[in-house]
Amino acid sequence: MSDKGAKESSGADFLQLDIRDAPSGGRAEWLAGRLRRAIADGRLPVGSRLPATRVLAAELRVSRGLVTEAYQRLTEDGHVAGRGRNGTVVVAAPALPITAARHPSPAADRLFAAPPGDDVFDAVRSVPARIDLSPGVPDLTAFPRAAWLRAERAVFGELVPSGFAYGDPRGTPELRRAVAGWLARYRGIRANPDEVLVVAGTAQALALIGQVLREDGVEEIAVEEPGSLGVRQHLQRQGLRTPPVPVDGQGVRVSELRAEGAVLLTPAHQFPTGVVLGGARRRELMRWAGEGGLIVEDDYDAEHRYDRPPVPALRAMLPERVCYAGSVSKVLAPALRTGWVVAPPRYRDALVAAKRFADLGNPALPQLVLARLMESGELERHLRQLRHRHRRRRDAMIVAIRDHLPGAVVHGAAAGLHLLITFGGPDGTAAARRRKEFADTELAAASLARGVKVHPLSWHRQRPGPPGLLLGYAASPATAVAEGVATLGEVLRELGGVH
Amino acid sequence: MSDKGAKESSGADFLQLDIRDAPSGGRAEWLAGRLRRAIADGRLPVGSRLPATRVLAAELRVSRGLVTEAYQRLTEDGHVAGRGRNGTVVVAAPALPITAARHPSPAADRLFAAPPGDDVFDAVRSVPARIDLSPGVPDLTAFPRAAWLRAERAVFGELVPSGFAYGDPRGTPELRRAVAGWLARYRGIRANPDEVLVVAGTAQALALIGQVLREDGVEEIAVEEPGSLGVRQHLQRQGLRTPPVPVDGQGVRVSELRAEGAVLLTPAHQFPTGVVLGGARRRELMRWAGEGGLIVEDDYDAEHRYDRPPVPALRAMLPERVCYAGSVSKVLAPALRTGWVVAPPRYRDALVAAKRFADLGNPALPQLVLARLMESGELERHLRQLRHRHRRRRDAMIVAIRDHLPGAVVHGAAAGLHLLITFGGPDGTAAARRRKEFADTELAAASLARGVKVHPLSWHRQRPGPPGLLLGYAASPATAVAEGVATLGEVLRELGGVH
Repeated sequence: MSDKGAKESSGADFLQLDIRDAPSGGRAEWLAGRLRRAIADGRLPVGSRLPATRVLAAELRVSRGLVTEAYQRLTEDGHVAGRGRNGTVVVAAPALPITAARHPSPAADRLFAAPPGDDVFDAVRSVPARIDLSPGVPDLTAFPRAAWLRAERAVFGELVPSGFAYGDPRGTPELRRAVAGWLARYRGIRANPDEVLVVAGTAQALALIGQVLREDGVEEIAVEEPGSLGVRQHLQRQGLRTPPVPVDGQGVRVSELRAEGAVLLTPAHQFPTGVVLGGARRRELMRWAGEGGLIVEDDYDAEHRYDRPPVPALRAMLPERVCYAGSVSKVLAPALRTGWVVAPPRYRDALVAAKRFADLGNPALPQLVLARLMESGELERHLRQLRHRHRRRRDAMIVAIRDHLPGAVVHGAAAGLHLLITFGGPDGTAAARRRKEFADTELAAASLARGVKVHPLSWHRQRPGPPGLLLGYAASPATAVAEGVATLGEVLRELGGVH
Repeated sequence: MSDKGAKESSGADFLQLDIRDAPSGGRAEWLAGRLRRAIADGRLPVGSRLPATRVLAAELRVSRGLVTEAYQRLTEDGHVAGRGRNGTVVVAAPALPITAARHPSPAADRLFAAPPGDDVFDAVRSVPARIDLSPGVPDLTAFPRAAWLRAERAVFGELVPSGFAYGDPRGTPELRRAVAGWLARYRGIRANPDEVLVVAGTAQALALIGQVLREDGVEEIAVEEPGSLGVRQHLQRQGLRTPPVPVDGQGVRVSELRAEGAVLLTPAHQFPTGVVLGGARRRELMRWAGEGGLIVEDDYDAEHRYDRPPVPALRAMLPERVCYAGSVSKVLAPALRTGWVVAPPRYRDALVAAKRFADLGNPALPQLVLARLMESGELERHLRQLRHRHRRRRDAMIVAIRDHLPGAVVHGAAAGLHLLITFGGPDGTAAARRRKEFADTELAAASLARGVKVHPLSWHRQRPGPPGLLLGYAASPATAVAEGVATLGEVLRELGGVH
């Protein structure tokens, strides 16, 4: 046997595949399943290359199209990714069957035992889990690595040396122009590039807006209840109080907002309930803002929607009273730390000064690369691909919830990267009485002890309320999503028949 | 003539070169000069490609080595740069002879007419200049574009998808490890990677340190006099007072520091005077810190030194009382917005919290690329190349000062990216009397009106003092440096015989 032959057959031999084991009519799915197992048990570790389709097809004596189809399924799962000349590479392992202990680990226990502190999200991240259903993360296996590198090469080919010097604290003209175009196309916002302030993600947007409001004499900013714990922490860090205002099925209750106050809203897909701000509420809110109210619009995942038409940003309707913040964290990757603020005219200069003294502006290179991806249509293509994948994962989650958590009520699944489940029926019923008997933090702790990471709804509340869980579906393959939900069902039954 | 021939000859024809015009014995310099002129007058615009050495050599009927030597000179000047397969590309035009008006432009006038405001550096940057001698910028034509792209490709090849998610606010483990190694090799600092906090440049380091000191009850931090205007602005923004402490030929006067106070120092190469903190002063400072003083060490350009041995960082000697800040702004590029803080143990957690709520951490990709450049030795190679170029440019500046500004006193030229010139002799002399008659801001304004950008020393003072100019030499080709200084000489004579 030649060296070449040995090398090629070694590419598939270890998989121990025999096509005669495959069911007729489902051979691609069978092959995909075998490869998934090899990835899960480490025979094909993350970073390794799948055999070339030609090689594997020849060995199994099947058509190359069949192998390509199997690889395609793994790609859609998010287990493997095409790397151009480098072939098809394993990028994420599927969940293994549960083998870990069924008792909470000390780290998981501590995490959910006390009210969440300033470092709660760092702590959550640092606890390992087989299946991570944390909300707010898109499919990261899909990050367009090749397109990013191509765009960066093009940027380097054109960049004048002064592009490496200190720059405009507002961001590069290229990205501000691209963001203005993006906001017009996707969010109905008309903004001049000069009005766009590039920032280090929504976290920095909140820090800068918080600083500027404090300087302006603002002492509190109302937040949605339930509403994002992270957002609340970032605002409080700037010395702002964050009084809660209830959210119902139509969104925030505008009638409970303080006249001439400030409020932070997530109107397109309320975090965490997923409610879309209703038409009557929008009009009511516009009136409130017209009479002196100020809105900070956190448009954190508005680009992701599945079963409903797009909802224009509030900013599109009331530029004088809405401070808009968006980012690429949910469209590309949180690790890029890139977002933008479009502020009302009266706060614009103060925000630029705050950004200048925060860090003199975002790094230039990633801004220029991102601007290219936006202007070339690559980012749009990427978003379409993400939507397709996310929808499949969301559907898998809904099916799994129906099968394994039959008593759970699903909220906000028409858009975004996560959904919310709550338990029990309306107040006064037996289910409502039972639901008071368990804390969602316990459920999250027990679930994490079984290797499935979820966020308890109570973290995102300032007032007592029914328990619930936030389940992110976008970042995990459909198989992992389904298995994670199945594990939740087991945990819930073990915790004592909440249903 | 074939197509190929036509194309090749067009590569050099427009240069109108005749080798018979060249002086014997200086043909490479002659060729470099002709090419410089073609770049300066736009026949070879920035971004265009030089003819292949083989092509130009054949046309001129000279050896390929001679052409290569000429290209090498242009590369060292910073006018052109090798771009691998893309050949040799024009990256910066040399200064053209003065054709602009000799009267201050309105923008330049405004810039220097009033005391510098919060946006002074943005304003300086936005005024165009033929020759930019602003301090604090390294040779940016040398940015290792190819190495950066190679490292980024390698990063993408290995990065697991979770690398694109939210990360540790302290920075990636890879960069923290690489920075710890860099600090040990270059600055004599022993730090555990866990002690390294990656930040968005020194600007953010100052913002975070300022916040944390304020939270700890610190209300003022002494600064060097003269000392960096930018540093002072960043500290004041955090609500800190910045009382000045004089700097003399041995560095900061430790005896004038308030007991148990805080001070920001630039000990390796004082900004702007370039003084190195003397041995006796170091010992005095250590005593002061040991008795409760706190030092913020701004090690902004310590990697650049020419005629003297390296000076270890203060942090190396007193880890409990020194909060150290460094960055790649002067080693690679300010536009990367990447730096680090190594804090005393008591401030470490508070700084991590401040960074978390500032922006959740630096972007991951540039961190990973930079870590590779540091660990592979590429950054070290780059630094060696920079030193060589910067030294030539510094030498050119010193020669030009001797020729065109014979009365100027040069300070701090043994290290860094800029030098300081002051005028006139010791107090009481006629020169000292005359020097009080002109403001360095007027000199800077008149110089900018002639296309040469410099910073007046008075910007970097809180108390009155002799006039002076900060002249950055690192970012401009030697020819531009020399011409800029010559223009300064003319301006000075026109302003009325200060010398």
